[in-house]
Amino acid sequence: MQFASDNIAPVPRQVLDAIERANHGAMSSYGADPLMREVEARMRAVFEAPEAAVYLVATGTVANSLSLACLVQPWQTVYCHRHAHIEEDECAAPEFYTGGAKLTLLDGDHARIDPAGLELALQSAGGAGVHNVQKGALSLTNATENGTVYTVAEVERLCAIARAAGIPVHMDGSRFANALAATNASPAEMTWKAGVDILSFGGTKNGLLGVEAVVIFDPAKAWEFELRRKRGGHLFSKHRYLSAQMLAYLEDDLWLRSARHANAMAARLSQSIAGLPGASLVHPTEANAVFAAWPREGHRRAQEAGAYYYLWPGSQSLDGPEDEPVAARLVCSWATTEEEVDRFLATVR
Amino acid sequence: MQFASDNIAPVPRQVLDAIERANHGAMSSYGADPLMREVEARMRAVFEAPEAAVYLVATGTVANSLSLACLVQPWQTVYCHRHAHIEEDECAAPEFYTGGAKLTLLDGDHARIDPAGLELALQSAGGAGVHNVQKGALSLTNATENGTVYTVAEVERLCAIARAAGIPVHMDGSRFANALAATNASPAEMTWKAGVDILSFGGTKNGLLGVEAVVIFDPAKAWEFELRRKRGGHLFSKHRYLSAQMLAYLEDDLWLRSARHANAMAARLSQSIAGLPGASLVHPTEANAVFAAWPREGHRRAQEAGAYYYLWPGSQSLDGPEDEPVAARLVCSWATTEEEVDRFLATVR
Amino acid sequence: MQFASDNIAPVPRQVLDAIERANHGAMSSYGADPLMREVEARMRAVFEAPEAAVYLVATGTVANSLSLACLVQPWQTVYCHRHAHIEEDECAAPEFYTGGAKLTLLDGDHARIDPAGLELALQSAGGAGVHNVQKGALSLTNATENGTVYTVAEVERLCAIARAAGIPVHMDGSRFANALAATNASPAEMTWKAGVDILSFGGTKNGLLGVEAVVIFDPAKAWEFELRRKRGGHLFSKHRYLSAQMLAYLEDDLWLRSARHANAMAARLSQSIAGLPGASLVHPTEANAVFAAWPREGHRRAQEAGAYYYLWPGSQSLDGPEDEPVAARLVCSWATTEEEVDRFLATVR
Amino acid sequence: MQFASDNIAPVPRQVLDAIERANHGAMSSYGADPLMREVEARMRAVFEAPEAAVYLVATGTVANSLSLACLVQPWQTVYCHRHAHIEEDECAAPEFYTGGAKLTLLDGDHARIDPAGLELALQSAGGAGVHNVQKGALSLTNATENGTVYTVAEVERLCAIARAAGIPVHMDGSRFANALAATNASPAEMTWKAGVDILSFGGTKNGLLGVEAVVIFDPAKAWEFELRRKRGGHLFSKHRYLSAQMLAYLEDDLWLRSARHANAMAARLSQSIAGLPGASLVHPTEANAVFAAWPREGHRRAQEAGAYYYLWPGSQSLDGPEDEPVAARLVCSWATTEEEVDRFLATVR
Repeated sequence: MQFASDNIAPVPRQVLDAIERANHGAMSSYGADPLMREVEARMRAVFEAPEAAVYLVATGTVANSLSLACLVQPWQTVYCHRHAHIEEDECAAPEFYTGGAKLTLLDGDHARIDPAGLELALQSAGGAGVHNVQKGALSLTNATENGTVYTVAEVERLCAIARAAGIPVHMDGSRFANALAATNASPAEMTWKAGVDILSFGGTKNGLLGVEAVVIFDPAKAWEFELRRKRGGHLFSKHRYLSAQMLAYLEDDLWLRSARHANAMAARLSQSIAGLPGASLVHPTEANAVFAAWPREGHRRAQEAGAYYYLWPGSQSLDGPEDEPVAARLVCSWATTEEEVDRFLATVR
Repeated sequence: MQFASDNIAPVPRQVLDAIERANHGAMSSYGADPLMREVEARMRAVFEAPEAAVYLVATGTVANSLSLACLVQPWQTVYCHRHAHIEEDECAAPEFYTGGAKLTLLDGDHARIDPAGLELALQSAGGAGVHNVQKGALSLTNATENGTVYTVAEVERLCAIARAAGIPVHMDGSRFANALAATNASPAEMTWKAGVDILSFGGTKNGLLGVEAVVIFDPAKAWEFELRRKRGGHLFSKHRYLSAQMLAYLEDDLWLRSARHANAMAARLSQSIAGLPGASLVHPTEANAVFAAWPREGHRRAQEAGAYYYLWPGSQSLDGPEDEPVAARLVCSWATTEEEVDRFLATVR
Repeated sequence: MQFASDNIAPVPRQVLDAIERANHGAMSSYGADPLMREVEARMRAVFEAPEAAVYLVATGTVANSLSLACLVQPWQTVYCHRHAHIEEDECAAPEFYTGGAKLTLLDGDHARIDPAGLELALQSAGGAGVHNVQKGALSLTNATENGTVYTVAEVERLCAIARAAGIPVHMDGSRFANALAATNASPAEMTWKAGVDILSFGGTKNGLLGVEAVVIFDPAKAWEFELRRKRGGHLFSKHRYLSAQMLAYLEDDLWLRSARHANAMAARLSQSIAGLPGASLVHPTEANAVFAAWPREGHRRAQEAGAYYYLWPGSQSLDGPEDEPVAARLVCSWATTEEEVDRFLATVR
Repeated sequence: MQFASDNIAPVPRQVLDAIERANHGAMSSYGADPLMREVEARMRAVFEAPEAAVYLVATGTVANSLSLACLVQPWQTVYCHRHAHIEEDECAAPEFYTGGAKLTLLDGDHARIDPAGLELALQSAGGAGVHNVQKGALSLTNATENGTVYTVAEVERLCAIARAAGIPVHMDGSRFANALAATNASPAEMTWKAGVDILSFGGTKNGLLGVEAVVIFDPAKAWEFELRRKRGGHLFSKHRYLSAQMLAYLEDDLWLRSARHANAMAARLSQSIAGLPGASLVHPTEANAVFAAWPREGHRRAQEAGAYYYLWPGSQSLDGPEDEPVAARLVCSWATTEEEVDRFLATVR
């Protein structure tokens, strides 16, 4: 009953097998391994983007930060949701990698940016010339931090606003597979066809040891990205082991199958919890995370039975009346089982 | 016949086994995994340093850069050898992580810093007050970029000069195991007992997929290191896979045994090459890399037979008289075999 | 009828005379001029702070940025009002000088930080450990960007909250003289006695060519400040001309007399405007700036008569019904005359 | 007998008069003053560069740093002489403003870069791809730190090497007027016609209170420069006082006349010293600084008579045999008088 995060899960058999297969003989280092050429080809096919530049790094934080650094100048600002990972969970890594750019925080229900708010923020930007930070880039997170998903139409609308203001778009896709699984959109539809310039394509939360891809649809940024990656200490010498993981991830749609499973587990959890007396959803369950509130006594039983998850937000507490609803976050992964979900539900009921 | 670098080698069986063993069930993320507690305990024992803080990252470049960032202010300078990895091979990552500190380049035979030169540089530092960059830290590399090794006495002497000038010492130990194997010094003797404050303890070149430890002998710097690591995007969510590798590395002295083997293979290569007609060593062979020159015709035969290594420095060329000596670098690893070495020697002869 | 800003005003006679007097013979450069020793002594006396370190720079932006850089680490955040100059008008200079720290924006009426909001923000800071930016410093602006003033008691209360959270306090006093003139507080009461650690002590808006002092009440930060100032290119070689200006500013309380005059002119403006039909104050007039709204026809007459000021905020417009109130900002300076004020009022009426 | 530096001198009468004239009524701030439009027009005429962008800042360090920041990326390096001001005297301000770029130090007699050394350095740059810092820009100093001057032909040659390598050129002209006075070259010939992209055009050492111009011959960089200037805290609100000084400087060739005088005083000093028994020039005297060695007893007499100058380099000492030559630096300025020079020579003899 492990719902604390998708990053506490192990990795699928296929991923370790791929590492094993890669572990023979000498192989060129620093990304010149032949496996990486395959990753590149496969990823370009997946995205219907034959010119895209594709790079691997080990963490989502650096995938986002390097991407943003390629899009904004130090005197510009990144528009993102108030609860975006780049704002709340990266210890100012974007500020570090961009050389001190700002983040401008936008509102919107369920961690989705409100288009009207974006439009307003862009209109008022830079009005005082050099005294203000300048418009830099838009960063969307899909799936969002609240377990919701932007549809392709929603992404298109936000990208159109950005494009009208002359700024590029980054997508934080640390749970990109979950967003695709939720919408049945194609990778291309959800990204460059909708107006996204750079994608952080997550692998770790969805089953890799620690690999994320960055897909740069405008290859003119590729060399800069490579230099920034090395300078950040993020270029692996034994790069073959990253390549092998990513190949296994793409093989037979492992990435999409894993995400579909995680989403299905979350849906199963969500539907049952929503039906409990005194319970309600805090955010709609659209991807692999459930944000819901239910009576404190249910939490107590679950935790006594060994369930592992976070009360959410941090201000929630197990101290208080037994029948009062307390909010929590439950995250499912590729490794979550129906049995685990049902056992959890049984304790909460 | 793969001598291009130690980072083109695969990893030992034990390392993959350890990853397999770690791949079960949920485990706390971001370094809170129980395996990391074992790494910490084991490393403290290895270094006879019960208070040391120990962290894992994935690349040598970032191990060095984060270490230096904890030791110097942006208006200070790092004293290092002109051919140090931090100067020549990291695309100014130290400048990035320190916020723009300088590197002051020192001379010395075979990539070892000349103590008199260090003393002179420190004496003349900061004489013009705020107009100059200030003394920051000393960075030593052991084993060096030229395949040589500082003895404990040499490290002690350089550290004493640094201490007299009031600055701390970093050791780039991306080939630390090779240095210990060469000197039979204990880890403690080679580091904190000699005056080293922070060590980049290499794993990748000597048999891991991509793991380096940073050992901070003064635990007062630990929290700052943790924040800088996260901010640099170098904190792994599925950290267990780094911990597992490092445990396997320390288990049964795998790290030292691998380094001893690599050093022995280099010695075997070196002795034979040195004895060839028209050949000579460019640098003494003390660790796992051979820097030697031999007649061009020998290079030609070796390369035709499929040997893979670099002419060194880059200005060397296969164009020219057949009997003229041409310099090269040959690096051995844990995976280099006697058979491979002997086959290579046979082609060169 | 010049009310656009206090920085469009010239400088008093005494300031030019002081520059003239300093313009004789050779004088040590880079702050070693004997005039600076006098500035230091005078400033320490003014602040009853015999240990304080005192430095001169040329702009308010850098006075703030260097001060903050001495107080926060790159992975920390500065708490400030949403409309603080450091957030809105400095093109991310604080982010530049701090190496990428964040600004956390607080609310509060009339550009004064609400203490409860500060408390809440500090309580929730850093809850996720290294994933979050850490608490760094509090920055207060006195007088504020909205022409209001914190009383000593209000400063004390905010500083007490900061101190309880373990963070230091910066005061942006680009209009510090106006705040003192408004409250009759002593310099010491308004700063270190209330808990302020570093003060940007404004000179330019209140009558100098371009000189601000930074007063550091904890001299342990002094050397770091000097290095950061030089490294930022803000150390003047012919420093005597800054020293001379600051001496003239402090002589015979020119600084306080100038601020009192500016405040009095603003009060005169404010009282008359508030009494106009259809007019109202947007913010209370406590220092030298008036934020008020009055019917559009009044604006039209004023501007036709040559009055120079800004509609405020930028979304206000002269297009619309004649009797609709339109908001504006009017700033008075040491050079504003009663005649100018009255002439303006006559056009608006 | 003040020869310590040209920055210990006062400013000419005309400069203070210009400040006085500018000190009337309100004037637009932040560089929008009408005087700045005149500066721009005048400077473009002086440089025969009708498209050039012209900006004013207060120190030479920031003129250099902002210029370099507009020319190089953080992962690039600036080629400069080992004794350039940007390397030795700016506390790593270039590293700060560029976001951590490197400086690659070149040799050459008398602080002039040796063209062959530049060529060699550029050829070997970036050979290891992302592992190396990349070629960024060339920075020349004219007149140099050793009181020598590059001729137009020498500047052309170095610029041609840079251009062949695809990198732009910055000229540190903190003593640009002295270089022109020495060569009789026109401003255009010495800069853009020879291949210089950005010039730091010094004013302070040659008679202003603290004003330098940056002349950007490629106006595409102008907006970036403006944002970097503001972000660095170097945009003056009461900018009129900088404009007024620069206008006075350009008026009637005050700048050239002042530099010619300073050079002439240095020549007078140099010729006499060179003729003393036991004396010799350390560097040729081509601009306004004399680097010479003469017997220790002469130094003693000079210093007892109140002469103020530096032994140079710092390792020189007054302790030792009376007849041993000791090297020193003597700098003349617009304010140095023949009487002062002759009085000095009399004490030394």
